[in-house]
Amino acid sequence: MNAAILGYGTVGKSVFRLLERVEGISVRYVLELPDRLNESYMVSDPEVIFTDKDVDIVIDALPGTHPSYEYIKRALECGKHVVSSNKAAICFGFEELNKLAGEKGVSLLYEASCGGTIPIIEEILRIGKLDAIDKVYGILNGTCNYILWQMDKNSMDYGEALSLAQKAGYAEADPRADVSGFDVRNKIIILSSLAFDSFLEQDIPTVGIERIDKDLLCRFRSEGKVIKLLGMAVCSGSSYALAVAPAAIPETALEAGVPENFNMISFNGEYSGEIKLYGQGAGGDPTADAVVRDVEKILYKDPAEYGRTFEKKPGYDPALLRGTCHVGDQIYPDSVLSDMALKAEKEGKSFVFEFNA
Amino acid sequence: MNAAILGYGTVGKSVFRLLERVEGISVRYVLELPDRLNESYMVSDPEVIFTDKDVDIVIDALPGTHPSYEYIKRALECGKHVVSSNKAAICFGFEELNKLAGEKGVSLLYEASCGGTIPIIEEILRIGKLDAIDKVYGILNGTCNYILWQMDKNSMDYGEALSLAQKAGYAEADPRADVSGFDVRNKIIILSSLAFDSFLEQDIPTVGIERIDKDLLCRFRSEGKVIKLLGMAVCSGSSYALAVAPAAIPETALEAGVPENFNMISFNGEYSGEIKLYGQGAGGDPTADAVVRDVEKILYKDPAEYGRTFEKKPGYDPALLRGTCHVGDQIYPDSVLSDMALKAEKEGKSFVFEFNA
Repeated sequence: MNAAILGYGTVGKSVFRLLERVEGISVRYVLELPDRLNESYMVSDPEVIFTDKDVDIVIDALPGTHPSYEYIKRALECGKHVVSSNKAAICFGFEELNKLAGEKGVSLLYEASCGGTIPIIEEILRIGKLDAIDKVYGILNGTCNYILWQMDKNSMDYGEALSLAQKAGYAEADPRADVSGFDVRNKIIILSSLAFDSFLEQDIPTVGIERIDKDLLCRFRSEGKVIKLLGMAVCSGSSYALAVAPAAIPETALEAGVPENFNMISFNGEYSGEIKLYGQGAGGDPTADAVVRDVEKILYKDPAEYGRTFEKKPGYDPALLRGTCHVGDQIYPDSVLSDMALKAEKEGKSFVFEFNA
Repeated sequence: MNAAILGYGTVGKSVFRLLERVEGISVRYVLELPDRLNESYMVSDPEVIFTDKDVDIVIDALPGTHPSYEYIKRALECGKHVVSSNKAAICFGFEELNKLAGEKGVSLLYEASCGGTIPIIEEILRIGKLDAIDKVYGILNGTCNYILWQMDKNSMDYGEALSLAQKAGYAEADPRADVSGFDVRNKIIILSSLAFDSFLEQDIPTVGIERIDKDLLCRFRSEGKVIKLLGMAVCSGSSYALAVAPAAIPETALEAGVPENFNMISFNGEYSGEIKLYGQGAGGDPTADAVVRDVEKILYKDPAEYGRTFEKKPGYDPALLRGTCHVGDQIYPDSVLSDMALKAEKEGKSFVFEFNA
């Protein structure tokens, strides 16, 4: 089979190198900027790729919603299998792109979009086939985890920890997509849609870590709690709720010990019980590892996903995520997360949700 | 496809129930004791199963090495696919049974033999295809973890914690296979053979938890360390070492926080980095979950394993596992685990290895 890689940044380069180890696949094109076409296989016009009948798989290793979304759509329309590591684009066109892949009889796989090397989508789909999954949650953003981990460990200010994360290559120069919680939002929507077999399109409470300071971390530590940015999704009967927020979790919870820029994602199956997966959630090589796994599924005709339609239409019920909420210094027991997150936003205060798995 | 289930204990019953949810498979036989043949599909003569041409998959849900090993072999010889949850039998005939499956062109799958519901074999094989794995280790026995966890949490004696584990159904009336470390030995041999692509047949140091008392746990706690029973495997160039032993690990390590009867297994891939998987390592439903996943692989013609031969023949070098060893009250820095474990055994003393991942 022939592949084309869209984008030649950190992920694209790692994918290129790792694909050399896979028999039966060769990279025919790499989409690059016009001023960087250093190799014969590099092109800057994506239509060259989409219209080449010999290209079987298009690998999207671009960041951001656009033009990734448009490229994925075009590739599917041209009958190409698509593998994407781009959570923003996949989340943006989730229902439409999955449906389109089904209509065209091609695969749309995106393991690398959530949790890097961690095989979370594979596990959720596998368990979900037999089992009812009622909860998905976890640490889904390595940048935020690194910042909170540094702040907590070294009693550091937010700004100082952010600079450190940027120096270490764990945060972008413009870190807003990560620290605002929007990156986690994309991921928890993708994961819970698959887990609950429904496209969950609601706007969801999304609180980042910008207002977490070291005094707040200290206050929770003195009560035996650690703050982590969590994506949370619960389903009960025909209702569901999702949220992204800084969460206070007991020091004894495994999530409390997740260091540096690692991710840890959990879900519960009726038969399987609680499963947690831990690993590198970002970075070129770990992401490429997940991309190449998806490519191999197509190559070896694993019973891969040929699109997906969501039959269930559960109702959004934010009240399913309730508990003790902290808005600035105020404590609100047994409150609805989304209400209190909104209150914190309006008042310009920090927000922390006490999370018990 | 038609399946037969060997054994109708906790695992066999869960497998039976869970298979009802899988389209395309029906259970034709259950092998039961002669005095328990309550249903028309129950038989007590395994030859009825092996010689029935319409049986495609034999599911081994028996405990212990024999007669499981003989049944697996016979089923493979008769051209049946085999799925087994039995680590003792699989480890005992590992190289031979894998080779036989390859010769017969049938699948031999045993995800449920290591770590219950945790998809550890799948992950190791997947990562190992592209990546070099140089380390596998973890908490692989729920019974031992439950006992050590109770002893540590509630400052309990070994005997008291063992009774509690038996009452909770986490330990057998005869707990020796678990507490002696032999169960972990089988699992770490299976996992590291797959990870290092070699059949590692060496006798390996195997120390259980019988000599761990609450004073020892306290002593390590006061130094910020927790004792867990670990299976450990390392590979360096063309050498490897394996061991099972109580290990002192820092309180900050994720393994330190693994509660109750859960398992956590880790490995390192060159591309993927460190991956950890956590979940229920035993019990009827979690084990059945892994069994049924293997059955589905065969059913859906997933590129499942059709046997396996091990080409590499690395040399056993116990010196690869060295560090600080505790024999009773004595501390031996930078010592070889296997030497010190032997010394402890001879002197009838406790043994603890300081493990750093």
